[in-house]
Amino acid sequence: MEKGFHVAVVGATGAVGEQILKTLAERNFPISKLTLLSSKRSAGKTLTFKGEEVVIQEATPESFEGVQLALFSAGGSVSKALAPEAVQRGAIVVDNTSAFRMNPEIPLVVPEVNEDDLHKHNGIIANPNCSTIQMVVALEPIRKKYGLKKVIVSTYQAVSGAGAMAIKEMKDQTAAILAGEEFTPEILPCGSDEKHYQIAFNAIPQIDKFQENGFTFEEMKMINETKKIMHMPELHVAATCVRIPVDTGHSESVFFETEHTGLTVTELKEMFTEAPGVVLEDDINNQLYPMPINSVSKNDVFVGRIRQDLDNEKGFHMWVVSDNLLKGAAWNSVQISESLVKLGLLK
Amino acid sequence: MEKGFHVAVVGATGAVGEQILKTLAERNFPISKLTLLSSKRSAGKTLTFKGEEVVIQEATPESFEGVQLALFSAGGSVSKALAPEAVQRGAIVVDNTSAFRMNPEIPLVVPEVNEDDLHKHNGIIANPNCSTIQMVVALEPIRKKYGLKKVIVSTYQAVSGAGAMAIKEMKDQTAAILAGEEFTPEILPCGSDEKHYQIAFNAIPQIDKFQENGFTFEEMKMINETKKIMHMPELHVAATCVRIPVDTGHSESVFFETEHTGLTVTELKEMFTEAPGVVLEDDINNQLYPMPINSVSKNDVFVGRIRQDLDNEKGFHMWVVSDNLLKGAAWNSVQISESLVKLGLLK
Repeated sequence: MEKGFHVAVVGATGAVGEQILKTLAERNFPISKLTLLSSKRSAGKTLTFKGEEVVIQEATPESFEGVQLALFSAGGSVSKALAPEAVQRGAIVVDNTSAFRMNPEIPLVVPEVNEDDLHKHNGIIANPNCSTIQMVVALEPIRKKYGLKKVIVSTYQAVSGAGAMAIKEMKDQTAAILAGEEFTPEILPCGSDEKHYQIAFNAIPQIDKFQENGFTFEEMKMINETKKIMHMPELHVAATCVRIPVDTGHSESVFFETEHTGLTVTELKEMFTEAPGVVLEDDINNQLYPMPINSVSKNDVFVGRIRQDLDNEKGFHMWVVSDNLLKGAAWNSVQISESLVKLGLLK
Repeated sequence: MEKGFHVAVVGATGAVGEQILKTLAERNFPISKLTLLSSKRSAGKTLTFKGEEVVIQEATPESFEGVQLALFSAGGSVSKALAPEAVQRGAIVVDNTSAFRMNPEIPLVVPEVNEDDLHKHNGIIANPNCSTIQMVVALEPIRKKYGLKKVIVSTYQAVSGAGAMAIKEMKDQTAAILAGEEFTPEILPCGSDEKHYQIAFNAIPQIDKFQENGFTFEEMKMINETKKIMHMPELHVAATCVRIPVDTGHSESVFFETEHTGLTVTELKEMFTEAPGVVLEDDINNQLYPMPINSVSKNDVFVGRIRQDLDNEKGFHMWVVSDNLLKGAAWNSVQISESLVKLGLLK
């Protein structure tokens, strides 16, 4: 392979791992050697990267010898066990699980928002939750100029956020319903929870398990990660996270209140036109607004339906959509990797 | 037929009309004569009511001779043309379209909230928009005891709200996608608007047409109707209305702020246990919460996911689900009719 870094991808066969490989290739990330790692079950299989076949190996501590950059996306327990091993062997880890996100020693990074936090890394950089990433990309340009006081978000999350098997479950259920056949839900809302519900032609107001305070972990991720990424512990954030029968592309209905007065819809639209990572899709006269089916395979965060609250001059509503597997996961991880190279942190 | 009233159903062959007939039968509403009316196209067809075949007639002004109660559900233009004709001939009209809802002379009624407004009728009573009805049923017990200051709602609305043809469109699109076939969207988001989008495996943030202020008519219905029904012109209400690929059952993520402090989640749950028209489904330890598939064919409004905002002691979040064809339309119309009988207004 070409001149570059020895890169390892852990969880190469998963829904996000697949997108990481695709994105590394598309972005032509400088790779001198590519190591694909997975659980024992997938070891021995091969994947194609830029026309070359790469054999997948079982991930062990020794797998990381010589690795300079390790992209983890194989679940929290794998990251907890192996990320420190990779770091000990000299690698920088970009971790796409929730294992380290709220650890105060570990930066949680969305490059459009807090790229500078990468300088504080101690070997591991956490990639935020998918639904958080797209929201903070849209909120950051507002915070910069007008300050942010309050955010209330309701999500419309795609099934691929729960993995490739969940997508299969939705498609199988949908086919069964159209054919008038029976089926038994087995994965959603949350593989590790007790009860499973139909997602086809339904909406499930549970993503991840419940906490004692009545919020789900997914909701608390949006609340806590937003404050950490934006360096705003004082920000008021509330989230309701809902799974809907969409393959890929999370949508979010976001209400926000600015700190200062003076923001207008016209100015907001201008800000979004120039905001990094954002594509403005907002022309109601032509029925133009973001939709999940149009976000698939794109790295951008799409923003539309921007309007001022009718009772609160500091309040606004917007609709934010992005491919949860790309900006919500794979692309943000590769983007962090590119930032590490740019900042001279990956050597 | 039995002792009772001469009832006319206008729009008997539509998605809501069908549910009105089913509900009139189930509730054993006192009907001495049933007149089924429709457009010229459906005239001559027959429908079965309580085992008897009834021939559908074309709706004309003269159709209402002798009618005591007319339930309209055939679109705004039909109501505007024929409801005054029915009233002139002595009928009371319960209108399920948006034609008269914001007319200050016409009561807009959800019996659990403002049954007394029926006394002020001048012949026509308007049935509110589906997404409004289920929300105000859940908000009313809170308003009564703690006052209401602010409501921010994001909806997850079912396709049947756009009629039986929209349901067919969603099913056909879904089958085409599963089979890898092409299709052309023709109805949603809004039959009368220019562009049409895929609803299968998608979320469309447009219901009804756009207004100049950036909100859709559906969103403005929720905002204005809520204030009118609850007699709270000062209430702050904001809505984002979204269509998702669900057959029947609207879901709503509702944030509300009370006027007074002191409300707790425990008390809220107790209030909902006793609230008319509400069924509490809120036990996160058993993953119990409302879902659209469980709401179908039921008259109740299901409430769950109740939790206090983490930053605002007067703020709460809840998830409200109801069958949009029943409490959202047919059942509320029949319920208004029952109230008219109970209050001695239907003679």
